[in-house]
Amino acid sequence: MTDFVDRPVITHAGARRALDGAIAEADSLGTPVVIVITDAAGNTVTMARMDGAPLFSIEVAEKKGWTAAASGARTCDLRDVFNADPTLLHALAPKVDDLMAVGGATPIIVDGATAGAVAVSGATEEQDQQIADAGAQCLA
Amino acid sequence: MTDFVDRPVITHAGARRALDGAIAEADSLGTPVVIVITDAAGNTVTMARMDGAPLFSIEVAEKKGWTAAASGARTCDLRDVFNADPTLLHALAPKVDDLMAVGGATPIIVDGATAGAVAVSGATEEQDQQIADAGAQCLA
Amino acid sequence: MTDFVDRPVITHAGARRALDGAIAEADSLGTPVVIVITDAAGNTVTMARMDGAPLFSIEVAEKKGWTAAASGARTCDLRDVFNADPTLLHALAPKVDDLMAVGGATPIIVDGATAGAVAVSGATEEQDQQIADAGAQCLA
Amino acid sequence: MTDFVDRPVITHAGARRALDGAIAEADSLGTPVVIVITDAAGNTVTMARMDGAPLFSIEVAEKKGWTAAASGARTCDLRDVFNADPTLLHALAPKVDDLMAVGGATPIIVDGATAGAVAVSGATEEQDQQIADAGAQCLA
Repeated sequence: MTDFVDRPVITHAGARRALDGAIAEADSLGTPVVIVITDAAGNTVTMARMDGAPLFSIEVAEKKGWTAAASGARTCDLRDVFNADPTLLHALAPKVDDLMAVGGATPIIVDGATAGAVAVSGATEEQDQQIADAGAQCLA
Repeated sequence: MTDFVDRPVITHAGARRALDGAIAEADSLGTPVVIVITDAAGNTVTMARMDGAPLFSIEVAEKKGWTAAASGARTCDLRDVFNADPTLLHALAPKVDDLMAVGGATPIIVDGATAGAVAVSGATEEQDQQIADAGAQCLA
Repeated sequence: MTDFVDRPVITHAGARRALDGAIAEADSLGTPVVIVITDAAGNTVTMARMDGAPLFSIEVAEKKGWTAAASGARTCDLRDVFNADPTLLHALAPKVDDLMAVGGATPIIVDGATAGAVAVSGATEEQDQQIADAGAQCLA
Repeated sequence: MTDFVDRPVITHAGARRALDGAIAEADSLGTPVVIVITDAAGNTVTMARMDGAPLFSIEVAEKKGWTAAASGARTCDLRDVFNADPTLLHALAPKVDDLMAVGGATPIIVDGATAGAVAVSGATEEQDQQIADAGAQCLA
């Protein structure tokens, strides 16, 4: 029977734990951000807009989250690929609706498969990525 | 000084309290749902997709939340208006992008002004409304 | 550890089996159709446009498939809900981008959870639903 | 009689053969990908998302497929044109909605006319192109 395989699916409790881990990291940096936790398909499980985080970060964090979940890669690494290959950036990125290859999102990997993503927007790109990494590591 | 007035703005901590109150109500009903807490402009502050809640409820809860915040009315009451006047429904509802006049969202009213909304999707319309009311009452 | 729960995820082999079961049912009815097999998030795993199936059925089948996966319900049953409640139809359905509550799609249920959907377009609504049911039953 | 001419139109059976040839090539490379087989108009006839292929590849493969069918060129060759002329890339590519000039798609040519395309996403650009070429050659 190979019609189905069992895969780990992130629970709301797990997503809340990653969210709170990311909030703690943002607090320690003193940078209010929007944090989105997605499932493997890039759909939001939970999110937080911290007091003072910019409004545009809702949409940015959602799209970074989809990008990390749908690619299985940290978005800072996707950005490096596009930095090195501008033709690829301009030929591909605008054509995929929710693709946002900007640092700040980290896939949640369980047993070698992507089970979700932590995505952050509102601070510097490096800080966003650091906060996302911290959130994802809560579930490692 | 009349250029500005102070208004109560919902914090992330307040939104989390309303969210957890709504989750507790949904748990007591045994119905997994999506819950969205918005600010006065209908933008999400925090949200939760409980384990087993249907996926389409993300979009539905977001739009019910905007509707309650942007109107200051419970969406079950807006639905009653449209039930009684189908011409109004067809003439108006499609023209306001995020207007979803279906039961399940409650404005958060502070000192007579709308400060946000609690919006719910995934159970029956009556249960969604009951859960949203419970969440909003946590902040009363 | 409740951060993750194991859930059955449909494989390409399983999706191909459901696809071929649906094609056989369509052949027995003599009605060429488009058949889409989705995962639990409504994303396509495999699809077939049979010779002579109408072109518009690609988009229709994709959206019926998302609808069945995102709701966990047969789309003919969702249609019945809307048949009985026109206010709900007009207030809700146009506001959810990919929601198409028209007969022809069946969720794939495993251990009580939605693991995907079989969606069909191109014949009558009743035939589409019959073909979708036949495809889903291949995996039961 | 010049109102109509006979043209070879790809059947579902032909598309399935190209699909399975491409899957076999991807298996031999050990790289799960999304494969889309289109007709001469760039509309999908059949597709497969192999187990482990990234989710974003659905949209990418569909657009590469349209590009190869609508141009009659391998998308790696279109990419070379844009690599050599960035102004052309920026002036033209964003204006054609589904144009994605990134390696990985091969037109299916019959008697000198384009009858469809094989499009691939999920591996390296070179591997995607190799898999697409292999699929198209099944029909040569």
